[in-house]
Amino acid sequence: MTIRALVFDVFGTVVDWRSSIIREGELLGRAKNLKVDWAAFADAWRAGYRPAMDRTAKGTWQNIDTLHRSILDDILKKFSIQGLSEAEIAHFNLAWHRLIPWPDSVPGLNRLKTRYIVSTLSNGNISLLVDMAKNAGLPWDCVLSAELFGHYKPDPEVYEGAARLLDVAPGELMMVAAHPSDLKAAQRCGLKTAYVPRPMEHGPEATLAPRDGSFDITAGDFVALAGQLGC
Amino acid sequence: MTIRALVFDVFGTVVDWRSSIIREGELLGRAKNLKVDWAAFADAWRAGYRPAMDRTAKGTWQNIDTLHRSILDDILKKFSIQGLSEAEIAHFNLAWHRLIPWPDSVPGLNRLKTRYIVSTLSNGNISLLVDMAKNAGLPWDCVLSAELFGHYKPDPEVYEGAARLLDVAPGELMMVAAHPSDLKAAQRCGLKTAYVPRPMEHGPEATLAPRDGSFDITAGDFVALAGQLGC
Repeated sequence: MTIRALVFDVFGTVVDWRSSIIREGELLGRAKNLKVDWAAFADAWRAGYRPAMDRTAKGTWQNIDTLHRSILDDILKKFSIQGLSEAEIAHFNLAWHRLIPWPDSVPGLNRLKTRYIVSTLSNGNISLLVDMAKNAGLPWDCVLSAELFGHYKPDPEVYEGAARLLDVAPGELMMVAAHPSDLKAAQRCGLKTAYVPRPMEHGPEATLAPRDGSFDITAGDFVALAGQLGC
Repeated sequence: MTIRALVFDVFGTVVDWRSSIIREGELLGRAKNLKVDWAAFADAWRAGYRPAMDRTAKGTWQNIDTLHRSILDDILKKFSIQGLSEAEIAHFNLAWHRLIPWPDSVPGLNRLKTRYIVSTLSNGNISLLVDMAKNAGLPWDCVLSAELFGHYKPDPEVYEGAARLLDVAPGELMMVAAHPSDLKAAQRCGLKTAYVPRPMEHGPEATLAPRDGSFDITAGDFVALAGQLGC
């Protein structure tokens, strides 16, 4: 197996979106004296994500910042949150630019980067991924996004586009993700796959899906992945 | 003047393509016992670049690796260079992935990066820019290329596309380049401009163009630019 580059799913795989959104919600709640179940709020925000991408696939392309904002406007009403200014809502929407990494993400990426090109391959838009990387110290060699291809994962254009831009054969490119659906779509395009389950992604009480053993590598975290890939 | 991101021309502005190509030529010449004027060779290779981009603008998009190879095949004949294998020619073509930075480029970018997003905005293709950054330690936050827009600079699609992907207003984006033509095209799209002349780009004996004073900033090198931008 000759791997030249690794591309990473980001939301859930590299960063802990749920804890981050809960924390930003709590900060906002304290500042504005709001009583909200922020864990339920974070889950509702994320739950709107796939349906929003499916809608945009049938119409004009919209990036994730725009989709996050449209979901946010909707759930602010559902959670009866009032009294926020436009600037406060816009800042809260950018909480997705400030997500915090899992503890192993930065050290693992730094090790993997010594031997391989490491890039995002996320449905998040470029500016979101760049802001997140600067904020969190994620040492990407390259920032690739569904936005560049006008398609969201798991559409094949995203995986094929990444191989084309990095000028590697699909079989020289490894997709790293916590989500089997993403990895299976990558496999269908000929990519190698590394499965890094993130059992805390949906919180400590979530029911875990059974682990899927159909990928080239399974690793407990990015540091373990680096060890398995000889870094 | 509120700047949120800096985008950099690369060939000539960040890296010293001429010295790098001469050095790679000399290495090849020694290995293969070739007698070639490598400075003239480097100049001829670079001279083919603008006409090749103009040709591709009228037909099917081709990236710079492909254009470099087509020019190389032509000038290998013109310089009567024979006896190279396909692998040797392919490796030589990738000399553009291994260009060396000007001495101030890495320290200057590291300072600028503390305060601004720093990205390439080059006609070089993504894989070329990623390889170059890893090889030379260029600490980009993002790698943007004409390749993403299907247009070469100075077409406006490139400058406008960079502002769109970084989600900044054109006036919040500063183009940094050694070439007034690039900066003037950026200005026409509303970008701010920083002129960093590189008097050695075309070698120690080249006639220098008069300095152009029509840009927001002129700096002697990237470290001076960082100082002028408050980093």
